[in-house]
Amino acid sequence: MLTLHHCVSARSFRPLWMFEELGLPYELVMHPFPPRVHDEAFLAINPLGTVPALFDGEVQMTESAAICQYLASRRPEARLGVRADEPGYADYLNFLHFGEATLTFPQTLVLRYGHFEPPERRQPQVVEDYSRWFLSRLRTLEPRLAREPFLCAGRFTAADVSVGYALLLASHIGLEERFKPAAADYWRRLQAREAFLRALAAQHEAALAQGVSPKPAMEAGGGG
Amino acid sequence: MLTLHHCVSARSFRPLWMFEELGLPYELVMHPFPPRVHDEAFLAINPLGTVPALFDGEVQMTESAAICQYLASRRPEARLGVRADEPGYADYLNFLHFGEATLTFPQTLVLRYGHFEPPERRQPQVVEDYSRWFLSRLRTLEPRLAREPFLCAGRFTAADVSVGYALLLASHIGLEERFKPAAADYWRRLQAREAFLRALAAQHEAALAQGVSPKPAMEAGGGG
Repeated sequence: MLTLHHCVSARSFRPLWMFEELGLPYELVMHPFPPRVHDEAFLAINPLGTVPALFDGEVQMTESAAICQYLASRRPEARLGVRADEPGYADYLNFLHFGEATLTFPQTLVLRYGHFEPPERRQPQVVEDYSRWFLSRLRTLEPRLAREPFLCAGRFTAADVSVGYALLLASHIGLEERFKPAAADYWRRLQAREAFLRALAAQHEAALAQGVSPKPAMEAGGGG
Repeated sequence: MLTLHHCVSARSFRPLWMFEELGLPYELVMHPFPPRVHDEAFLAINPLGTVPALFDGEVQMTESAAICQYLASRRPEARLGVRADEPGYADYLNFLHFGEATLTFPQTLVLRYGHFEPPERRQPQVVEDYSRWFLSRLRTLEPRLAREPFLCAGRFTAADVSVGYALLLASHIGLEERFKPAAADYWRRLQAREAFLRALAAQHEAALAQGVSPKPAMEAGGGG
């Protein structure tokens, strides 16, 4: 059984979305964001204090984009992964990492120093530096997304889940209106996917059932 | 032929180290750091303006940890990758990402706001926030590294190259003296590898031959 520790619309949305794309059975354990601040006992579940924390038998994982690749390999017939002997393999690996290291991390700076920190620790310069960083990196996808419906291999893959989460986060922190046309269209295509909608519904229901606020993590307070 | 655009001791050191571990022939194209600031024409090579930029026939890649996994798959007999049917596969993927997203990106904040920005834009608070972030995340590796010589699968893999680069960067920005004992030992083991030493020598020679300063990128000025 797959168990995912999750905060609403945090990075752990990536594995949740993958579960729904793959039709895997799973259990969601919801936490208020950030989990280590609300519950020190969470450090026994994940010493990093972060979500996701995924448990799959003896397997434990904490890096959301790595989990996407792992889950894709677990059900190869769904073709959400790209095999090393397929032409899109290099792009697949590149975009799995790009979604997190290049497109998501800069946004966490925008969140931290624009929303979560108390007023005296906010840093408008850092917010502006990393908003521009994110948008300029995202812009490099325009030619590809104007030409292809998905990032690689001519089909929807786990790499789209990695990059798609970065766009979800951007939409929550007010950067969506600055997307260029091809990225905006791509983001509309991703949001229309049934598995994406099921993942949104699943986290909402699980939050209510477990007494956690169903508001997205980035609209709550505190931490990084 | 593999062509790598590289700045001394920047993230592109990961693929260079992998070339040497795998015994792959390659060409290094050296750039002063950061390449886009010194040469706008670099944006035609990589629209992101960053290194690494790897070219392998029709393949182009820009994410250093993804390139490590890609190169490992290119020469499976060297066993620097971990196959999906091996027990260490989940850890392998997790640490490939952890090395970059969790251990390297925070250090780029320390560099940017502590070294590269002009004095009036420096942010001592951000430097301290992300130095502590890096060290607390690194600390979570202590139990594993006290028990095992490498991160996963009972052998040296591309995941060690991903995390090892984060330790190289930390040593350049003055965080090495704050490593805990198991991380310090691990970092000594990595530095003693012949391929690591060959990679250091190769970038030094290539820099001199191509008229670029052989000093590490993080001791130069400018950009992120």
